[in-house]
Amino acid sequence: MQRFALLGAGFIGSVHAKNLAENPNVTFAKVYDVSVERAAAIAELYGAVAVGSVEEALTDVDAVFIASSTDTHAANLKAAVDAGVAALCEKPIDLSLARAREIVAYAESRSARVMVNFNRRFDPDHAELKRIVEEDGVGTVELVQLTSRGPAVPPLEYVKVSGGQMRDQTVHFFDLARWIAGADPVEVFAAGSALADPRLALPEYDDVDTSVCVLKMPDGALVQIDNNRRTGYGYDERIEVLGSTGLVESMRHRARRVTHYTAGQVVESQMYAGWFERMQPTYALALDHFVQLLETGAPIEPSLADGLKAQAIAEAATKSLHTGVSEKIGY
Amino acid sequence: MQRFALLGAGFIGSVHAKNLAENPNVTFAKVYDVSVERAAAIAELYGAVAVGSVEEALTDVDAVFIASSTDTHAANLKAAVDAGVAALCEKPIDLSLARAREIVAYAESRSARVMVNFNRRFDPDHAELKRIVEEDGVGTVELVQLTSRGPAVPPLEYVKVSGGQMRDQTVHFFDLARWIAGADPVEVFAAGSALADPRLALPEYDDVDTSVCVLKMPDGALVQIDNNRRTGYGYDERIEVLGSTGLVESMRHRARRVTHYTAGQVVESQMYAGWFERMQPTYALALDHFVQLLETGAPIEPSLADGLKAQAIAEAATKSLHTGVSEKIGY
Amino acid sequence: MQRFALLGAGFIGSVHAKNLAENPNVTFAKVYDVSVERAAAIAELYGAVAVGSVEEALTDVDAVFIASSTDTHAANLKAAVDAGVAALCEKPIDLSLARAREIVAYAESRSARVMVNFNRRFDPDHAELKRIVEEDGVGTVELVQLTSRGPAVPPLEYVKVSGGQMRDQTVHFFDLARWIAGADPVEVFAAGSALADPRLALPEYDDVDTSVCVLKMPDGALVQIDNNRRTGYGYDERIEVLGSTGLVESMRHRARRVTHYTAGQVVESQMYAGWFERMQPTYALALDHFVQLLETGAPIEPSLADGLKAQAIAEAATKSLHTGVSEKIGY
Amino acid sequence: MQRFALLGAGFIGSVHAKNLAENPNVTFAKVYDVSVERAAAIAELYGAVAVGSVEEALTDVDAVFIASSTDTHAANLKAAVDAGVAALCEKPIDLSLARAREIVAYAESRSARVMVNFNRRFDPDHAELKRIVEEDGVGTVELVQLTSRGPAVPPLEYVKVSGGQMRDQTVHFFDLARWIAGADPVEVFAAGSALADPRLALPEYDDVDTSVCVLKMPDGALVQIDNNRRTGYGYDERIEVLGSTGLVESMRHRARRVTHYTAGQVVESQMYAGWFERMQPTYALALDHFVQLLETGAPIEPSLADGLKAQAIAEAATKSLHTGVSEKIGY
Repeated sequence: MQRFALLGAGFIGSVHAKNLAENPNVTFAKVYDVSVERAAAIAELYGAVAVGSVEEALTDVDAVFIASSTDTHAANLKAAVDAGVAALCEKPIDLSLARAREIVAYAESRSARVMVNFNRRFDPDHAELKRIVEEDGVGTVELVQLTSRGPAVPPLEYVKVSGGQMRDQTVHFFDLARWIAGADPVEVFAAGSALADPRLALPEYDDVDTSVCVLKMPDGALVQIDNNRRTGYGYDERIEVLGSTGLVESMRHRARRVTHYTAGQVVESQMYAGWFERMQPTYALALDHFVQLLETGAPIEPSLADGLKAQAIAEAATKSLHTGVSEKIGY
Repeated sequence: MQRFALLGAGFIGSVHAKNLAENPNVTFAKVYDVSVERAAAIAELYGAVAVGSVEEALTDVDAVFIASSTDTHAANLKAAVDAGVAALCEKPIDLSLARAREIVAYAESRSARVMVNFNRRFDPDHAELKRIVEEDGVGTVELVQLTSRGPAVPPLEYVKVSGGQMRDQTVHFFDLARWIAGADPVEVFAAGSALADPRLALPEYDDVDTSVCVLKMPDGALVQIDNNRRTGYGYDERIEVLGSTGLVESMRHRARRVTHYTAGQVVESQMYAGWFERMQPTYALALDHFVQLLETGAPIEPSLADGLKAQAIAEAATKSLHTGVSEKIGY
Repeated sequence: MQRFALLGAGFIGSVHAKNLAENPNVTFAKVYDVSVERAAAIAELYGAVAVGSVEEALTDVDAVFIASSTDTHAANLKAAVDAGVAALCEKPIDLSLARAREIVAYAESRSARVMVNFNRRFDPDHAELKRIVEEDGVGTVELVQLTSRGPAVPPLEYVKVSGGQMRDQTVHFFDLARWIAGADPVEVFAAGSALADPRLALPEYDDVDTSVCVLKMPDGALVQIDNNRRTGYGYDERIEVLGSTGLVESMRHRARRVTHYTAGQVVESQMYAGWFERMQPTYALALDHFVQLLETGAPIEPSLADGLKAQAIAEAATKSLHTGVSEKIGY
Repeated sequence: MQRFALLGAGFIGSVHAKNLAENPNVTFAKVYDVSVERAAAIAELYGAVAVGSVEEALTDVDAVFIASSTDTHAANLKAAVDAGVAALCEKPIDLSLARAREIVAYAESRSARVMVNFNRRFDPDHAELKRIVEEDGVGTVELVQLTSRGPAVPPLEYVKVSGGQMRDQTVHFFDLARWIAGADPVEVFAAGSALADPRLALPEYDDVDTSVCVLKMPDGALVQIDNNRRTGYGYDERIEVLGSTGLVESMRHRARRVTHYTAGQVVESQMYAGWFERMQPTYALALDHFVQLLETGAPIEPSLADGLKAQAIAEAATKSLHTGVSEKIGY
């Protein structure tokens, strides 16, 4: 049984709160948020205690779930390390890669047990794809294709502090690419446009909403990633891995499995409205994985190093968006 | 908020216990089982109180979930009616149709609020199919096909007390047929064989494991149902409704959505292992529906009358299995 | 190289004419039709000779394709037998089962080489399903489901002389059932209604357009067949075979493989407009099969006996439609 | 009726010969090949006349199908222009873009009627996708994905003279990208590796077998193309077009539509063995289209200009493979 504190009671924090409450191996003990009301509401709903500071939250617990705002991740992570508390940390570690490296070095020097919450690794279909690749189901990986297309452009104020599409959306797929291919890409090319919302091209955002990345792996394998912020038809995510002997695909999800045949057309069930509806089950699975690692003492994965590497790729991809050149990735 | 007692802490009772505990509008107050140990274990797990009798269970609660053994359904239902407690009752009401009719008449004379737990009506895909039919998506219903094929023959001791395939398995689909077509069938023809386990043909079981039923609706529409107890490939359920202007299908479920292409074959994810894995989410949805009906005071559906009608069809189908004649159904 | 005559230059005759002309092992020599103009047009189009009588057509050829009107099949077949010419004959042999038996006995007594044109056996998907069943892919066959649903009720004048749905449409699936299961059914139950066109219920037609049949095989295996004359969404045919270890399905065909995702719906390509568009390729394949049998001298299949058996099942099914009893089939 | 000569009686020539013979609006008059035997064999098979020179072939015909070896395309095209004969020409016009431009300028100056045989435009599924895009089914095109993966690396001697993967395989998809998006890309980035056969990286081949291209369209839309020479599971081609309001996909083809369910796996029909099996029907459709254009006098499309533009993109892509930079395309 692991006693948990939760930092952050916003949208994603409340998702984690519910999972902490329902996990049979977790005692959801404390919650902290900059908003006292939000923390109190969550505490009330799940029988946890709302506390007044990060320090209080980190006292007398085994682990902390860091789901506070991005700019506080690094500080909260350091506090957890100092308190000797294991941490499950939302990505990114810090929007600044340099600052992220610092805190990771600090945590590693103290052998802190920290997992970066790359929840997509825990999607059962993606995990099944990974299993097939690992068990040599497709031979040597040669070409990977990852697609993530969101239903709507996020609010501009969010875009402004997000670090841009590479660091905010594509970073998940940089991690998946490394995880699936079992290697670190050496170069990345990125091209992108602001098509869904042309205002993203303004200097104050300097961002894109439709982009394509090409990663080169050390053995010459290639990875394609396309990301988009507005589809018109719901959230669309798929992965395919082509190897030397076969292909495996984690397919688009449709929300239901009903087909309707009428004159002139065959209509299938629509897709999930957004990434959250599609990916929601992965949060409980990721938490469960972390709890298992704590209970067994097994090495933590996805690790802080995994978090750093995905960010390093995002950094190079962001540069490539401007240069039009396939950029070397510096880990 | 509805205070619930649970009667029965066996396999399906423990499923309902979890759903009672997780439903935000339910207080899971009490649990009774003939096995004191089983009741205590469930009580411990979910913070309910284990009680020593049905009477105790029915005191000071709003509703009762009757998940005890089939031969106790009628008595427990009567006790609930007498106690003025609403009931969600597993099917069948009683294996004897005559006895079932008696208790239903009794319950109706006291305006008892009772829902028969035909959980398949709450499967989101089946419900979507029903919605499309109701919203005139296929015109007038003319031909319905229902398939339910189980992975393995149940234990013979279960078969012996089950009432036979028509009353045990097919009865769910008699209910779905009525629900989807919006009418009561007038005749039923059934043919069946003991192919998966030839011992079922012995006089002591007098049962079949592979059967086909054909229902005739009042307006001439036809319903096909095929049921089977052993597939070799997991649980297989599908429905299609052909109407005057179109078709709607609630498709076979595969457990995952991963496709694997290699030399000579394309492999899809396998199906769910059994009916429980496939149908599990419907239990929480059915409970939730019942709770909503209690909270709003809306008419109960599926009602006791629905339960009786499905049983009446099963009765005629069982007769037809022996006569080879399309039998009139006496409601 | 086989020299062929064609009897009948109507719709289906012209389909066969094209296939005769394009088959590399066939010389399309002669064509006869009661309409001199029709015969001449076909002859002109494909470089064959239009002749003035069946006798002329049967002179100096190896084989004849009997695609004339149903009421002439038996006489033309007899003429072919007498002329020592092999025959590929459209079903049915004769609408009267007694008359069909007579001509078959006559042909068999003279060891005539005659194939009944059950073209669906040559559909590549159905043939693949059959191959999988034969190679023990599903174990012992236990439950077969065959669906054939046509887009529109045929003209009433056609219905009048068709022999009824069992003899006209379902007969194809009686043949497929025997072929797939590798055995002759012993009983058949049929239920049907005139839903698409209620006039079919008038005494002058005494027919149905929506029907369900249940066949019982000697070993207890069951076969479901549903047939319908009007779908609203095109032609719909599928087969599934459930065995003791698995299932194989020959799926619905959609005319294209294009999927269109927009807000709220996912649209697939529509189905083929009619049975002809769906089944057209089978005619050339069936002809090719017959030509191979002629060239190699291998036993003819589907044989006249196959034709008779399918008709015998249709006979019993037609009776069952009226009695509501599962009828024994007399071969 | 169009009288045709065929230049080239090799593999693809013999495919075209059959289509010429079967097209009802074509008289297949003459065939020429550097191999007298090959020409004679084709002539014999289809009732055409084998001639001894290109000049003879071009006399007294309406049109010529240029299916000779790539290095003779330009000369044969010039001969056709000089003879005033319409031409359907296999791609590429010439491996040298400069030489191709010369001959195109010559042909255009004489208003020659020439179609470049980009047969994939005539695939019924791709054409349906194009129709949906054109009829505003997905809004403004923003992201296109084209996949073509071949079953096996071609013989090295073929690779040596092919011009490389961009000019040989990807060029088809450069054309499709222009056709679907309705615009000319301005930049192309390409990355590639020799993974299927590492010998392709030797200086004498200087080629890749696994590659990814990213095209930038004038309005910022992006096109991804991935091409591969060896899959292990057959030929794999698909297209998807994401627009501002939806997505349309021309899906992977499986050779059959049979599904086989057994313990632990669901097996679908395999894919077509190679590109030819998948694409074969497009050749007759492309020929038919050309014949219609000749009969109606409508403008020719895909035109010589289309052929040149696809080659220009291939040129820039080949350069990008070496520079790692997104290269401007010079038309």
